[in-house]
Formats: sequence, structure tokens, C-alpha cells
Amino acid sequence: MTDEAVAERRGRRAGGGAARRAERTAPRTEFARFITRNIPDLEILNAEALEIIEANAETVLAEIGVNFVDNPDALALWKDAGAEIDGERVRIPRGLARRLCATAPRTFTQHARNPERNVEIGGRNLVLAPVYGPPFVRDVAAGRRYATIEDFRSFVKLGQMSTYLHHSGGTVCEPTDVAVNKRHLDMLHAHMTLSDKPYMGSVTLPERAADSVEMSRLLFGADFVDRHTVMTSLVNINSPLTFDSVMMGALEVYARAGQACIISPFIVGGAMAPVTVAGTLTQVLAEVLAGVAYSQLVRPGAPVIFGAFVTSIDMNSGAPTFGTPEAAQITLGAGQLARRLGLPYRSAGAFCGSKLPDAQAAYETANSLNIGLMSGVNFMLHACGWLEGGLVSSYEKFVMDADQLGILHRLAAGVDISAGGQAMEAIREVGPGGHYLGCDHTQAHYKEAFWRSGVLDYKPFETWEEEGARDTATLAAAKVARMLGDYEAPPLDPAIAEALADYVARKKAAVPDAFV
Amino acid sequence: MTDEAVAERRGRRAGGGAARRAERTAPRTEFARFITRNIPDLEILNAEALEIIEANAETVLAEIGVNFVDNPDALALWKDAGAEIDGERVRIPRGLARRLCATAPRTFTQHARNPERNVEIGGRNLVLAPVYGPPFVRDVAAGRRYATIEDFRSFVKLGQMSTYLHHSGGTVCEPTDVAVNKRHLDMLHAHMTLSDKPYMGSVTLPERAADSVEMSRLLFGADFVDRHTVMTSLVNINSPLTFDSVMMGALEVYARAGQACIISPFIVGGAMAPVTVAGTLTQVLAEVLAGVAYSQLVRPGAPVIFGAFVTSIDMNSGAPTFGTPEAAQITLGAGQLARRLGLPYRSAGAFCGSKLPDAQAAYETANSLNIGLMSGVNFMLHACGWLEGGLVSSYEKFVMDADQLGILHRLAAGVDISAGGQAMEAIREVGPGGHYLGCDHTQAHYKEAFWRSGVLDYKPFETWEEEGARDTATLAAAKVARMLGDYEAPPLDPAIAEALADYVARKKAAVPDAFV
Repeated sequence: MTDEAVAERRGRRAGGGAARRAERTAPRTEFARFITRNIPDLEILNAEALEIIEANAETVLAEIGVNFVDNPDALALWKDAGAEIDGERVRIPRGLARRLCATAPRTFTQHARNPERNVEIGGRNLVLAPVYGPPFVRDVAAGRRYATIEDFRSFVKLGQMSTYLHHSGGTVCEPTDVAVNKRHLDMLHAHMTLSDKPYMGSVTLPERAADSVEMSRLLFGADFVDRHTVMTSLVNINSPLTFDSVMMGALEVYARAGQACIISPFIVGGAMAPVTVAGTLTQVLAEVLAGVAYSQLVRPGAPVIFGAFVTSIDMNSGAPTFGTPEAAQITLGAGQLARRLGLPYRSAGAFCGSKLPDAQAAYETANSLNIGLMSGVNFMLHACGWLEGGLVSSYEKFVMDADQLGILHRLAAGVDISAGGQAMEAIREVGPGGHYLGCDHTQAHYKEAFWRSGVLDYKPFETWEEEGARDTATLAAAKVARMLGDYEAPPLDPAIAEALADYVARKKAAVPDAFV
Repeated sequence: MTDEAVAERRGRRAGGGAARRAERTAPRTEFARFITRNIPDLEILNAEALEIIEANAETVLAEIGVNFVDNPDALALWKDAGAEIDGERVRIPRGLARRLCATAPRTFTQHARNPERNVEIGGRNLVLAPVYGPPFVRDVAAGRRYATIEDFRSFVKLGQMSTYLHHSGGTVCEPTDVAVNKRHLDMLHAHMTLSDKPYMGSVTLPERAADSVEMSRLLFGADFVDRHTVMTSLVNINSPLTFDSVMMGALEVYARAGQACIISPFIVGGAMAPVTVAGTLTQVLAEVLAGVAYSQLVRPGAPVIFGAFVTSIDMNSGAPTFGTPEAAQITLGAGQLARRLGLPYRSAGAFCGSKLPDAQAAYETANSLNIGLMSGVNFMLHACGWLEGGLVSSYEKFVMDADQLGILHRLAAGVDISAGGQAMEAIREVGPGGHYLGCDHTQAHYKEAFWRSGVLDYKPFETWEEEGARDTATLAAAKVARMLGDYEAPPLDPAIAEALADYVARKKAAVPDAFV
């Protein structure tokens, strides 16, 4: 299937000849709806293993407990709910956290300013969002360097133009040329104006989360934001078993505003969790139970996602490793635990440890993307662009990975078993020794029959050699240039654009720059 | 987990100080036992879809039929079995082919000359074999060129030294510098003398299959070969629905000798099969049913494998494509059909269309390897070294892929749920905010906790840059050189070596060279 065939045309077709001419000449931005799986999940834990891990997680919460640091309000909420408080330690009686989690929705809609880009998070769905967090960027031409706000804007543009990416994400790279205390304003402004896909809010301080809510109220209207979820933000747990007040402060802001959070242990196995898969799953489950339960203490019904960012450590170099079998097992197992808990699930991504968008990067990434699909992941952050263990956002890898995401769409759609899918008339028509290329069934179906990459090389060797024997990264670099050249900002009400610009300018002027 | 930890030492330890010293100084050849899955398969077809495809396949056999070309003996066997013969067309009444398949073993042992390298094909097992068939080779230093017998020997050596490769394979590349009518002798000789892993026989003419049996009798002893399976050979079906006399002739030789064959449709979807997944699965099943049934007519109980080599076509360039979602769906579905038929299953591989061992090659390969594991494949040909749609055996990709195969071993092993795996004492010891690196549990388990690549780069950016900023292919080239430098031939009885060399010399001298 071609990009054109899987994707729907962006809507809002105006009438009249001028509009039709504009439509014919403007670069088309195709987009695919979020994935709804029509294939089963791969369940590697049997009932006994699941019960052991769930019982152990309750033991961890009841006997070891979790720390809520610098957060007396949280301790008070926990005490009222029936937990045992000892300093900052919260010990949660067996079953309490799971009961509290029951008010979290099994699925929720995150609205985009273009309603066609709304996403449904949970159930059988899979929503794909780009890389989050790297302080560096890399491209083939200029190599590795600190990221700037211009890089940030370029990645938002690439995300907007990527057919198989459903979400604009959050910190697609760290704009290190903007003051730390003002960065979030420029980042949100870029997502809100350069993309019409859903986006994430700031979590680096509670007041930055509040800015995210305020800017969203300008973009969507205050009433709309009060009644709908328009952000999904990333709240990491300080594994093991620690909830710091910065991240919890952001969670509190978002939960009270009815905005969604991913509550996500951040684990390098062997360092922040045991070296074993079952041990790590136990800790992940205990941490998510405590975090989600806390979100429901803050506001019952607040939308949250069961997160699991899990990698392992290379015991020789101490570096985190990606695309490994242990990470795969944890990702698959955590998906089962999330479904039993009735929560949307976030895990996997275009993870790799490689310094270059080379074969290592692609092996590791494809391992994680495939496992993510099989694991029943509902929200995949870092689904494209991740390089060098998350230190680098790669321009080329962004479009290479985003292209691979098309495979997940097709694979998840399952097998068409209609009469057309069965193709018995074609088998009859062609018969033994024949050829299908010219038969009626092929002519009727070939345009949509096969997924086709928009980056990879399918040409004969001789043609490929004549064209410069380009590797994948080189082909991707050309595509990056084409996309950024073709980019057009999605239409935005000028009054809203002005209000957003004004908000950013006002907030930036109010305080001096800080770079820590 | 390190290579050392997963692998067992090669056996046959001689006594005495000299032997111990030799053991300490000789490069160690590690090997991993074939995979036995402890995780479930991914089943994407529901009961209704399976029943439709199975019923349609019976319709194809009964109403359309298959052609057995230039093969009056086959037509006679089919007639006796109850099929309707019309010229070369064989129409097989509903249910007959499936009933005939019932005498094929569900699982069989392929013996190696080193009994520790025996493989069990079928059941929950996965046996990995290298690339088969390319006329070209490529390496980073010399680029792409026609393959020679020296290349062939080098690939056999790399296979022998690859920890996660269980099988020496067959035509690891085409030795184009040897006469076509004598090639098989040199290829078999290389597998038999340079490797002690199991191998494949020749299928390019029935008399070459007979040579393969004769040479195996020299290697294993005639009595042993009469009573045991020592070869698994690749018999392709001329899809659609055509069985030519060359391939069937080889099948007949092997089946009569109790030697195994993979009976495998070779399908580029859209050309040799319908453009739809369900249609292709129908044709694959019909072809395998007919082929396996025929093997059982030749000799009931002959070991065979349900093969499915399936790719799709790029409708723009006409090139076959790899690592695609349609190929994944067919591979998964065919696994279900094979299990319902009670036959070992061959599919998937390190497939890619890329001209270079770059990111495209790795994405496509990892997609297929992961799907192969999830599909319940029992015998994976082309599990390493495949490049450029199978036109090229790549030295670097051979070792890159062979390294990735280690991931399949670990992932398939499933999750350890023992007390050690649960790691509750570690979680207790470390507690909230602690660190696992130094805890007792980590110290006890870290050596075997995580799979570790023997090719990929896990070093910090600065170290990697100082060492030349090498990409994966460059790192792999260095590993190829090390492996070929370290290679030592496995011991072989000099009398057997002489008998094999004599057989090859005699057969080569008996006829003039032919290059067609």
C-alpha cells in the first residue's frame, strides 16, 4: 500500500476552482489515523508468573513502601487513604493501590486543535509520538552538536509532515540556546503553531505545567480545556520507589486540570532495578501502582498511562543498552500487567545505543518497535528520531524511523479474509505455471496491496550505483531537506496566534534568564 | 549474558597436560544449542480465517490441481493414490493430500558429525542456518564481486565459528569459479571438512543429490546414513502450483534415502501468488500439501519441512521487497497452518533488499528475524549474511546478523520466575532511592543477566570517536578478519578426509567442466 492509500487527505476542502487548484499544487500532507490493532498481543507471562509478580508488587508496597519526597500534602492524602506514613515513607496496605487505580479511565481521548488529529489512548489502539529529551542533535552534513530552538522547530515540522506519526510529542530536543526557565514557553509555542497534532506539556516544574495549561486554554479555549484532555505529559518516577516533588508537582497540576500523564518508571536494569526480568517487572508494577493511585487521590478519574521505560546496562561499560532481549521481555510482561490493571500502556520506542543512524541503530530500533507492537503498547513515545541512548535527536533517523512506523500500521491491521482477500478467482485464472502480474485481481488490488517505504531503496543495483550508491542515512538526509522545504504551517486563527505570542513574550519578560 | 555464559564449550576434552595447555591457548569456539521456545507463538489468524484458508487450499488442489512436469513416475504414484490425472495436471480429491501428510514426522533429528551439534527440527525448536544461494559476495574492503570457492570456504568457516548459528547451511554463496557440474562436490567437501555442524545437500540435479548422499556415507559411515537423517535440503516449488522434475528428482533421491527436505513455495507476492495475504496463504498451503504428500508417496515417513519463502513485489520497480508487513503476516499465518498440519516449519531470515549492510538492511532484517521467532519457525534458512534481495552474501552482515541471533535465544528462553528471578531480597536490600549495582543479588547474577552483543558498540561517545567513529559495518569487518584469523578446522579422521578428497577428485575427473 502506498502512503496515499493508507492515509486520508487532510480535510477542510474549500469549494471553488481556486481552492481546487491550490490543492493540486500544494504539497500534500498525508496522515494515518492512530493504529487500532486487529491482531492479538504476545503474552509471555503465564498465569502463575503474573500472580507471583502481582503479589510481590503488593508486598513491596506494603512492607518496603515508597518515598514521597518533600511533599507533605501527598503524605496527608496517603494517610487519609489508609496508608502507613513513616517520615517520607509511604507503606500501602495490600490491595489499596490497585483499588485506587480503578477510577482511572481505561481509555481517553487526547484532543488536537485539528479534530481530525485527535487520538484515542488505550484499548486496542497505538498512538505514536516522537523522541523526547535529547540535548544534542545530529545530521549527516553537520554531525553532532547541541540542540537549538531552530532544531526544535525543524523536528516539530518533520513530525507534522510525517504520515505515520500521530502526535507532535514534547521535548523533541532540548533547545539549549534558550534559558532553562523559558524553554518550555518556546517549545509549547512551536508545537501549538507549527503542528496541529496533539502535544505534551512541560513537567520540569509545577509552574511550567501551569503555563502549559494556560497556553492550552489560549489555543483551545478555556472552557474546552476544562472539559477535555488536550495534553499527555511525561512524569518519570525516580526509580527505585521514589516520587520527587518536582515530578509529583507537575502531576498534581495536570491531574487537577483533567490533563493526562504518563506515570513511568525510568529504569536502567541493574542500576535502578534488579538485574532480572521478574524483579524489574515487580518494581515497575509497584511504582506504577503507587503513582497512578496517587493521581487518583489528587483527582479521581484523572487520565493516566501505565509507563515503563526500561533498558538494561552493559556491565562492561556501564552504558545503557537498547533493543535487547531483556528489555523485550519486560516490555511484553509489563503490557500484560497494564491490561490486567485496566490502564493504557506506554513503552518501547525507536531505541538504540548507536552513535550513528547505521545498522546498529536500525537493528536495535526495529527490535523495539516490533516488540512494542506485540506488547499492546497504547502510547509509544520516542517512536522516531532517537539516537545514542537518547542523547541525540537525529534528523535522518527521525524520517527513517517514521517510515518504519508505516509497517506497524499495516501489520496491526490484520488479514483481510473477504472474498477479495481470499483471491480464489485469481488462483483459478492464473493456474499452474502462470503469472499474477497481469491478472484482473492484481490489477484491482495492487495499488493498496503492499506497504511501500518512502525512504528505503528498492531500485536495481545498477540504477542505485549510478545514482551514487547512497546508504540509508544519505537517502534520509535528502528526504529531510525535501520535507523541510515543502513544509507549510497548518492554518491558525490569527487572534489565537497573537494571544499565544503575547503570552510567551510576557512570561519571558517577567523574569531574568536562568541557565540552571 | 555473555557469549561465554550462554554457550557450552565444545566437547571432546582430551586428558593430559598437553591437551589442557592446548585448550588454554587455542581460540575457543563457543556454540549455543538450538533454541527451544519457552514463549508462545503470535497467532494472527482466528479459527474462521484458518478454516477458510484450509478449505480454499483443498478447493485449489481438487478443482485447479497442480502440475508435475516431465515426471511420469510421479503421475503414476498420484494415480495410484487416488488423484485425477489429466496430462501433467494432478487434481487431488479433498482431504487426500492432508491424509498423506500424516505419515511425515512432526519432528526429526538431523545429525552432525559432531554429535553435540545435532539439531532437533520441529516442535518448539528453532534451528538457525546461514544465507543460501547468492552469486555475489560483498565486503567493505573489496565491494561487490562474483563469489568464488574461496569465498564459499570463508563463509563456512565463519558459520563454524558463529556461536548462535546451529547449521552450516548449503550454498552459502555460489562458487562461480568452479564448473556448474562440479560445484556441488566442492561445496559439500567444504561443509564436511571445515565445519562440524549439520549441512544441506545439493538439489540442482538428482545425480548431485545422489553425490550428496554418497559423500555423507563416507563421512558418517554408510550404515549410519541408512538409519539417520544427516542432511536437510532445499526443494523449491515453482509457484504457482508447479513441481518440476529437477527439484522433484532431488526430493525423490533424498526421501528414498531417509534424508530431509524443505518443501518450499518460492513466492514473490503479486507475481507468483495473489497480491493478498489470504490468497498467498491459500496457495502456499495447497503447494506444500501437494509437495509433502508426494514425499510421503515416495517414502512414507520421509522427514520434510513445511517451507514458505514469501516476499512481496515493489509495484514501482518490480523488485522484491523484504521486512514488509505483508511478508510478516504471511509468515505468521503460515506458521499456524504448519502447526495444524503437524509439520516442522521453515520461514523468515535475515532478509533485506538493501545493497549495503546499512540501516535499511538492519531494519528489514530485524523485522523478519523478530517475526520469525514469533511465527514458530523451526528451521530458519538465511538467518545471517543475506544482502541485496539474496543476490549477495555479505561478510560483514553475516557476523552482524549472527550476533543478533543471540537475541532470539534469550528472548525465546522466557522469564525466570524462580526466587532468584523474583529478586525480592534485592528490592528489600536496596529500598527507595538506593542503587542496585553493588547489591548481593546483582553481584550474584550480573554475569548472566543481560545478553551482550559481540559486534555492536556500547562505548561512550568520546571513546567511540577516539577509536575512529566506526559504523557497524566497519566494526563487523574487523570481527570478520579476527574470526577468519582465529579459525581452526574441527578434527576429522584422516581416513575419512582422504576418502572424501578422493571421491571429489574422482568425480571431477570423470566428466569435462560444464558452465551451464
